Parts: sequence; C-alpha cells; structure tokens
Amino acid sequence: MIIVMKRGASAADLSYVVSQVETFGYKAHLSQGTERTIVGVVGDDRPLENHNFELLPGVEQILRILQPFKLASRDFHPENTIVDVRGVHVGGDKIVIIAGPCSVESRSQLLETAWAVKEAGATILRAGAFKPRSSPYSFQGMGEEALELLAEARDEVGLPIITEVMSTEQVPLVSKYADVLQIGARNMQNFPLLQAVGRTRIPIMLKRGLMNTVQEWLLSSDYILSGGNRQVMLCERGIRTFETATRNTFDINAIPLMKGLTHLPILGDPSHGTGKWDLVAAVGRACIAAGADGLMIEVHPDPAKALSDGAQSLKPERFAELVASVRQIAAAVGRTV
Amino acid sequence: MIIVMKRGASAADLSYVVSQVETFGYKAHLSQGTERTIVGVVGDDRPLENHNFELLPGVEQILRILQPFKLASRDFHPENTIVDVRGVHVGGDKIVIIAGPCSVESRSQLLETAWAVKEAGATILRAGAFKPRSSPYSFQGMGEEALELLAEARDEVGLPIITEVMSTEQVPLVSKYADVLQIGARNMQNFPLLQAVGRTRIPIMLKRGLMNTVQEWLLSSDYILSGGNRQVMLCERGIRTFETATRNTFDINAIPLMKGLTHLPILGDPSHGTGKWDLVAAVGRACIAAGADGLMIEVHPDPAKALSDGAQSLKPERFAELVASVRQIAAAVGRTV
Amino acid sequence: MIIVMKRGASAADLSYVVSQVETFGYKAHLSQGTERTIVGVVGDDRPLENHNFELLPGVEQILRILQPFKLASRDFHPENTIVDVRGVHVGGDKIVIIAGPCSVESRSQLLETAWAVKEAGATILRAGAFKPRSSPYSFQGMGEEALELLAEARDEVGLPIITEVMSTEQVPLVSKYADVLQIGARNMQNFPLLQAVGRTRIPIMLKRGLMNTVQEWLLSSDYILSGGNRQVMLCERGIRTFETATRNTFDINAIPLMKGLTHLPILGDPSHGTGKWDLVAAVGRACIAAGADGLMIEVHPDPAKALSDGAQSLKPERFAELVASVRQIAAAVGRTV
Amino acid sequence: MIIVMKRGASAADLSYVVSQVETFGYKAHLSQGTERTIVGVVGDDRPLENHNFELLPGVEQILRILQPFKLASRDFHPENTIVDVRGVHVGGDKIVIIAGPCSVESRSQLLETAWAVKEAGATILRAGAFKPRSSPYSFQGMGEEALELLAEARDEVGLPIITEVMSTEQVPLVSKYADVLQIGARNMQNFPLLQAVGRTRIPIMLKRGLMNTVQEWLLSSDYILSGGNRQVMLCERGIRTFETATRNTFDINAIPLMKGLTHLPILGDPSHGTGKWDLVAAVGRACIAAGADGLMIEVHPDPAKALSDGAQSLKPERFAELVASVRQIAAAVGRTV
Repeated sequence: MIIVMKRGASAADLSYVVSQVETFGYKAHLSQGTERTIVGVVGDDRPLENHNFELLPGVEQILRILQPFKLASRDFHPENTIVDVRGVHVGGDKIVIIAGPCSVESRSQLLETAWAVKEAGATILRAGAFKPRSSPYSFQGMGEEALELLAEARDEVGLPIITEVMSTEQVPLVSKYADVLQIGARNMQNFPLLQAVGRTRIPIMLKRGLMNTVQEWLLSSDYILSGGNRQVMLCERGIRTFETATRNTFDINAIPLMKGLTHLPILGDPSHGTGKWDLVAAVGRACIAAGADGLMIEVHPDPAKALSDGAQSLKPERFAELVASVRQIAAAVGRTV
Repeated sequence: MIIVMKRGASAADLSYVVSQVETFGYKAHLSQGTERTIVGVVGDDRPLENHNFELLPGVEQILRILQPFKLASRDFHPENTIVDVRGVHVGGDKIVIIAGPCSVESRSQLLETAWAVKEAGATILRAGAFKPRSSPYSFQGMGEEALELLAEARDEVGLPIITEVMSTEQVPLVSKYADVLQIGARNMQNFPLLQAVGRTRIPIMLKRGLMNTVQEWLLSSDYILSGGNRQVMLCERGIRTFETATRNTFDINAIPLMKGLTHLPILGDPSHGTGKWDLVAAVGRACIAAGADGLMIEVHPDPAKALSDGAQSLKPERFAELVASVRQIAAAVGRTV
Repeated sequence: MIIVMKRGASAADLSYVVSQVETFGYKAHLSQGTERTIVGVVGDDRPLENHNFELLPGVEQILRILQPFKLASRDFHPENTIVDVRGVHVGGDKIVIIAGPCSVESRSQLLETAWAVKEAGATILRAGAFKPRSSPYSFQGMGEEALELLAEARDEVGLPIITEVMSTEQVPLVSKYADVLQIGARNMQNFPLLQAVGRTRIPIMLKRGLMNTVQEWLLSSDYILSGGNRQVMLCERGIRTFETATRNTFDINAIPLMKGLTHLPILGDPSHGTGKWDLVAAVGRACIAAGADGLMIEVHPDPAKALSDGAQSLKPERFAELVASVRQIAAAVGRTV
Repeated sequence: MIIVMKRGASAADLSYVVSQVETFGYKAHLSQGTERTIVGVVGDDRPLENHNFELLPGVEQILRILQPFKLASRDFHPENTIVDVRGVHVGGDKIVIIAGPCSVESRSQLLETAWAVKEAGATILRAGAFKPRSSPYSFQGMGEEALELLAEARDEVGLPIITEVMSTEQVPLVSKYADVLQIGARNMQNFPLLQAVGRTRIPIMLKRGLMNTVQEWLLSSDYILSGGNRQVMLCERGIRTFETATRNTFDINAIPLMKGLTHLPILGDPSHGTGKWDLVAAVGRACIAAGADGLMIEVHPDPAKALSDGAQSLKPERFAELVASVRQIAAAVGRTV
C-alpha cells in the first residue's frame, strides 16, 4: 500500500501517518517527490484493507499494490487446477462441453435433450430445477421433481449433471443430486451461499455476475476456496453494458485474462453471453480460440416452446454443428473436444 | 404484445403465428404495412412472457406494450403508499432521515452515533450486523451480538432500527430485532430472499442493485408485495458505470422517474451513491430537491477508524450540517424534515 | 509515478529500471517490500506519460500519482473562474439559466421562445444552427440562416446567444455570431476542434461526452485552455449507462466532484440528462441543490411539433414553473437566480 | 411505427392521434386491446422520426419497427461488399491482416516494422500521422512528415497504407497519401467528417465508437455511403464498460451480429480491444473464429520505447506467431490468410 500525501501536507500530518502505519506493526518508507510525498507501507498489508488512511489529515489517496485475492491467484498456485466431475476432467487439454435445456420441463424433454447432446459430443448435462427469474410471474422451475429427473437422466444417459442452487437452504437438497453445483450470475456476490457451497466438497461452477469485475469474481472464488472446497470452475457469461442489440456483452477478453490470473478452469457460456441463438456458435468458437477450457450451451428440442431462454437455445441439430465446428477450432489451438 | 413479421414472410408463416396466438386464447389483430406485417395480440398477454413467438418462422421481433410489473405500479394503485415504522411515516410529506454507522462495531460506537444522529434530526437508526463484503478477508459484521446492541440502542435512544438481512436463513433471527429489514443492493435479485421477507409483515427497504434497471427493481418489489407484505420502501444507492472517480454513479433521474411509476416511497443513499464523504451532503440535498421521501446516511464518530465504509461516512457534526441544509431544501419544495 | 516490480523480479531487472528512470533525468527511489519492490520516480513525471515502463523486464504495473490535467485544476488556480458573457457572469453567486429551443426552426419559433424564456428568467438564449444527428436522414439544422436569426433574436430580445459549432471549418462562421461556442457531447474529444476554439477568445461551453470520465473532460478543457482561451465553462448532460428508462443517466455526483477538482464553472443540462420533459424540473432542482452554477434547458412553444428533441422540451409555461422552483432551491443554498 | 395509447385515453385523444397520422399522408390502423389501444402507422415512416407523437395527449409510448439505417443494411443489399484496397480485397474469403505501429515515429521505425509485418503475412500497413490523444501534453503525431514516410514505405515495401484523418480540414491532405482513410473511434459520430470522407472515393475504415451501439455505427456508415462512397469497412475495437482490468471490452458478439445486419466487411482490432499485448493474440484468434474478415494489429520494434500505445503493441516476432496461429483458425473456419 502506498499513501500519497496532499501537496502542502504538513510535517505533523506526515508524522501522524507514519505513526499510524507503525501502530499496526508495519514499516513506513518515505519518498519525497517534488509535488507530493509518498509513504510506502512495507509488509503484507491486506489486513489493513479496513483502515481508512485516506481520511487522515493531509492524505490525498491510497494506492494498493497487492491483488486482494489469494487462493484463486496463480501467484500462490502456479499449476492449473483440474476439476474432476465423475471422471470428466475440466481444465485439462480436453475441451469440455456442457449442454442441455435452460430448465427441466418434463421427463421426455430432458431425456430427449440429454441423448441428443451426448450424441453430439457433450460430456456434462445441464438443466435448471430452481430458476432465478426477474419476474415473479414467470416460470420458476420444477424444483425437486426436476432434480429427480436429472438424476434419472444421469443414470440412463450416462452424463454427470450440473444444476443451479439459489439459496443456502437449498444446498443440502441440491447436493443430494448434482455432480456440479452452479452459482448463477445474480448470486456471484451472495456471500452466505458462497460460504455454504464452500463447506461442501462438490465441484462448483461460479458464473460471473453481469456487472462484476474480474477482481470481484476472483474474490468470490476465494470465498469458496477458503471454505476448503478446491473444486471450483469459472464461467464467463457476458456482462451488462450500454449495448442492447444483444442480451449481454460477452467479455472475450476475460478468457485469456483469467487464464493468466488464476489457476482455476474457465468456461464460456455464449447462450447467455449473446441471448440470440444465431450468434451462439460463432461466440462459442471464439471462446475456444481464446483459450477457454469448455463451453456451456443451452439446447432445447423445440426452442419456440421453451419455458425459459428459448430465444438463445439451439435445436439439437444446430448444437451438433456447433460441436463439429468447435472441434476444428480446438484442433487449431492444439486441443481436443 | 406485437409480433412483427419479417419482410417477405410467407402467408403460411403468418397463418401459423395467428393460429399460435389463438391457441393460447388470445385474439390476433393483423395490420399490413408496406414493409412489414404486424400481428397485435389482444388481451393481457403477460402470461405469454414465456412463449417464444420470436422463434416462429417468419417472425422478426416481438414488442411488448405492457409493463411487466403490477403490484408496484401506480396504474394499479394510484395513491402513495405510506410505510409505518413504529410511528415514523415513510412516504408522506415529512422527509425521513435514516442514519447511523455502516457496521455495529461496539456498544459505545453505536450508542454514541445513535444519540448524535437523533439529536441532529434522524428518525430511524441504521447499522449493519451482517455485512456483505467483496472480500472474504474483510470484516464480516458482528452478527447476532450486533442485533442485540441495536435493540438496546432502540430502547435507550428511542429510534426504530433498520438492519440488513443477507439470506433466507437469517430472516427469523433478524426479524426478531429489526423494525425494517434491509435488502442490500447485491441481493436485489436474490429471489428466495425476496420471497422470504415477503412472507413477513415487517417493513422492507429494497435497495436498487448496482447493475439493475428500474424495471427489474419494480419486478423485485412485486416479489415482496405478492407475498402479501405491502410495507415496502425503495432506496436508490447508485449504479455501476464506466466512471471510476466516484464509487458508484448516483442515478438522480431514478427519483422522479420512480415517483411516477410506483406508489412506493423512495429514498436516496448518497453515502453509497458517491463513496466519498465530501460529496454526500451535496447529493443528499439533490435527492430531496428531486422529490425523494428520505435519505439514508452513514455516520461514524471516527470515520478513519471505521471497520467498513469509512471513506463515505460523515462525522456527527458534518451530519448535523447536512440535516440543516436538507431542511432548507425540504422547505423549498414544500416539505419538512 | 510508482513502478511496481513483479514478485521475483531479478536484481538486473531492477537496476535496468532504475537506469531507465535516470536516463530521463529523474531520481529513482527504491522501497523493498515483503512481496514486491517498488521504485518511486521523483519529479514531475507527466512528460514520461509516453514511456512504457510497464513493458520493461520484471515490471508488474505502473501507478500514477499526479492528476494528468493542469490548467483546469484547482491545484494550480484555486479561485473560481467567472466567465463573462456580454455582462452575464457564469460561475459567480448568481445562478445562470440558459434556455431556448433545441434547433432554430423558424424566425417566429425562435423569437416566441426567446421572449418567453427571457420573461421567465433566462439570461442566455440557446438554439442549434448545426445539429449533430445520429441519422443522416434526420433534420440537420438550418445552418447559417439560423445563425442570422439568432443574431436578430439577440438584438431584439436582448439575450446573449449560445450555439453549437461542429467542425474546425465552422469555427470562423459561428464565431461571427455566437456569444458562447458550444462543443457538444459527441465532440468532447474532437481534439482539432478543441484546439480551434482554444485559439479564439470567445467563451466556450464544453459539454461532457456521454461516455467520458471526468478526468478526460478536464483534459479536454486543458486542450482549450492551453490555446490561451481561459473563458471555459463545463456542462454535465448525462452519461450512457445500462439503464434505458431514461435517455441518459444524469451524473449528479459530477457536480460537487467537479467543483472540487476545477475552478471552471459547471452547469447542468437536465433536458439531455433525462430525455423526458416530465423529469427535467426535478433534476434541474437537484443540480442547483448540488452546487451547479447554472442550467441549460430546452424550451419549445409546441414540443409535439419540434424538429428535434421534442420529447425533452418544456412548454414555456412549464419552464416558468421550473425557474420559479429553482429560485426557491437557489435561496435554500444561499444563491440567487 | 406503433403508437400505444395510455390506459384511459379518451376517444378525442384517439381521433386526434389518427388525424395527425393522416395529416402526414399515412394510414392509421387501430387495434383495441383490453388494457391499451394501439395505432399502427402504415407506410415507410422513417420520415416521421422527427415527429413527437409521444407528446400528443393520451399517448403512452411509440414503438419503432423499422431499423433506422438503410444503405448499410443487408435488407437492401444482400451480397457482401468487397472493398478493393490496391488489389487487396477486404470482405472476401481471404482474411486481411493490417499491421504496423500505432504512430509513425521515424523513417527507420516505420520501415523496419513494415518489412517485418509484411514478412509475417500482413497485407496492409497501418501507422498514425495525426494522433487523437486524451491529453494535450501527449505526443500528437508527426503530421505530414509521417504521411510522406508512409508513402515511401508503401513504395519501398509494397503494402498499401491506412492512416487516420481527424478533421474535415485534413481530408484533402491525408487523401493525397492514404489508400484507406481511417475514422477513429472518437470520431465515429463526427458527422461533418463522415460527410467529408463520403464525398471522396477512397476506401474508408470506420471504427466503432467506444460509447456507440451497433445501430449508431450503421447509421454512421449510412452517412458515408449516402455521400456516394460505397467502399466502407468496419472495425470493432472494444467498447467502454465498468471493467477496468482491460483498456476496453472487446465486443465479440458484434462480429457475427454485424455480419448478419450489414453487407460491409468487418474487422477486429484486439490491440485497442484489450490494451494489453499479452491478450492480443488470443482475442485476435477469437475474432477470426467468430467470422471477422480481418484484423488490425499494432506492432512496434521496441514497444517499451513506443511514443503511443506501447502497452498493447506486439514485437515483430510475437506478431509472426499471432499470424501463424490465426492461419490455423482461418483454416478451421474454411478461410485463408
């Protein structure tokens, strides 16, 4: 941490700042500039985050040098984490394709989709049982019945399953069924929920919040990791910007950026990232070209009849084309699907 | 709902769309333009929100005419709702000032602040017991102990209390103590939590999410209202934009906009809205000039030592000045403090 | 400037960085932390802005300490600048109201509006001759004919006039007529235009770009000021965010923030800041309550027939009500209209 | 255009709206809903854009059905436009790589870079002569001298050249030298400049503004196209969002979206899109995977010494690696470099 003194701060102000730094057990290192004096705080000053040196008399601003996240950082864990989902490895050389309907709507809809995505090359099945919907008047998901159908689909089709958990109270129930617990975008900073899933030992997929920075995303990862659950994968799904021609703006930069900052696997969700089915394949290919470890894609046997997210869902045949084209891209970057 | 057909959609496409509309029990009203044909859906089509007419062959886009929120709308409830907080009326002619520290840190800190803000003119006391913090390494609040201190402050100082509830599991505990349950910005779309507080009969303050539109905010209000709890007040606290010179961008437009759209009271929180103590009073005055029903202000006896949000907290004497200047503004718009 | 070395940077990397700093004539001040070494550059290092120390081997990041703007800064010019527009003082105790139609549409429309706004209390007349329109198919303004009508209105009604200049080539022409040259939001970073108006000695109103930070705004001010034209006033007119319920998001925080950072007068334009006539008065009052030096308001005798910006224009009688209510707010903050 | 009447609008309001629509020569088509009445305007109502039906008594809102852009639209011009830059075809099957330094800094810097990028596979040379810089204290480009050096580089190295033109006054000068005139992001809505380059017959590259929607981008294209210059190519270069970990947020969605909306070629600029040299190759590959027609990349022989944009410039050897990897991606999507 660096404390920048105001132009014209007094010697007394400066001494007081130094004494405060020393009070907390740190050394203060002074540097006298021509316009400003700066005070360097020597030591791991993350514990000082709560202290408001910027409010001391004569202080202009505080500059932080250390990234605030730790456990998710490559600085502390240089090798890639590989998450094991019933034998499917996420974060290794092989690209992982997660696919399925937005919501479980019926046994037949789920099984039909599950068989189709498996045949096309998906290795994990997704579908929502509890759905976070902006409107209380929208379909809210089938709940536990959907979880049972998901378990049945896993047994019958042979794909591990991922589904969303929306509150601390749901964690025990959803944990009974799911192979991966998904934390949705709107819950990326639901800290009690992060703590609750951090106490499980089930793999977690943490989606990026639609208005959250990558730094906040990594801090939220630290919430889970610090509970002892090291099986965390991340998923970029688009952020909210001024552009309304697409549902969200997929932040492609975040893919290579995160690969540098963290050891955790990162996937892309071009279905939410675009909100338009006819853009999904192109952005899915872009994810893999940019270095993503996998994709999460919404597929529905009849999107026009889907109870949620129909506009961004692919028909099974279009999904199969997507996987084929992603396979080409994966080969071009030295990976496989 | 209006369904816009593509340029060159076939007659068969059009008949199919019409038949689909009729399947759901609505009438379809056709209008043949020179470039496009449009199909009007006659009736309250909110139940069709889940149907994806935009995916039918020949359809270009869907335009929605009805606002999706209902219970929060002035259309359905023209008179202002006045929320009664132990005799303090929020939403009437009198401006309500809620003030107190960001977090409860100790008995003396809380009581000292409570007496000071009461003396300056505040009528509700705020302070956090459970704190949503971006970093797991930051101070997380004193929990139930803080709730007990808040209850003691209420009894001793005579101000009703508001404090945040962060998860469904905390609702019973916090409800035992609080006069108003606060839903924080990061939980504005925590739907299970909205449903849980909607089942109580305690007044709720719903803060706007830092990434949420006013329409989403009103839909989240409908989540609470549709549970039967009609005691809802709203609080604008700034949104996230590209500007980094302030912590958030206070959306002053939202104050008069919301007064037109909804019957619920609306307050402003310039402490979070700016993130800088020296901007708080100016933006607080602006809120009242724009028609807000009250303010929520962070006050700390020694901001430099605050365990959270020190940079945006006012010292008691500065808070007293703020109230004095707000009183002038209130008079200028025909209200009182 | 502070150069933060990577964890594990070598001694050779460090010496090279120090030698580079010294090459440019600065002293390097080292501070050895537990996790990182930092190098402070002693001296006014703004000239080093073009140098890419972050690319030197072993460097992690660069932190800048000095604000990049100079002439607009209160650091260098503590007293308020007061701009004199034919005897109307902008930036003093008296609030300035600029009003008029978005565009000049006809002699009668302009004169009728001019008389009405003068009577209601405006002291400067605004109207566009050259209009920046997103679509080439929209009305583009009446050009020089409008300038002549503006000059006539000034003579007849007795209000100084402000109008927009859109390109370097228009500067001589518009300068012949206008008492204030307006630089519109889309031109805030049109640097040749800033330089061109900086070479005149006519007062300039520099509107904030709809996606520009306050720092960029002050740098653009420096472009004008460094040409020798010290008669610069600023106008906040809303920024672009994710919220679409209003045309722009008026950044009320920017009003007190700018009053602290710069000595230049700052006005608010709630017409563009909201895009909705029924929100204009509330946000206009908020501007004055927050410390703005004036307002710029669009007024049209028949907004439904306006050729541009009708939706945000006030009828003359509503404008008169606005001025009356602003007068109350001005009194509440110790100023007059 | 669809005019939505307010709940409870009177019959007189409705008749007046209908009469107004008919006044302009359009037919009004009424549709009576259960909550709202809507009035469809039959005909190409783009000329009505300036009319403010939303202000008529009893009107709630206006919904527009037609896209406002025309000449850039695939609706009106289904086949791809191919721009011919001295024999280099932009918009065909072959991917075009534009590369070179941000600014011309010296004869040797330019030639060294030109030879290197040509050898690596670039087919057009870029470099700035006039530089739009946020700060008046930054390097502003070498001006005409740089244009002469660019012409020399073209002759010697054999690559056509692209360089930016910043104002209407510079158009004749820059046109004497450049094979493609670049309109920079900050000038995307500099309408006089768009009109000026629309009057030339030189190919134009129109970069997306950092604050502009794709709809505005296409309207700006229409400004150029309607001047008679049909040689327009577009370049996505990142937009401004709340995320500060990268310089801009590259909008990868815009690539396939624009390929659907317009017949004009679209390129990606991952140098500006990320602002960090170590992310450029990954995002460049993503562009091609998503369907872009080319890339624009900043290359400098010694980025640490670059006078502008060093942080995002590649060394020639890294650029060669990028081209090699892009070649693989191009093959994977059935194209060549």
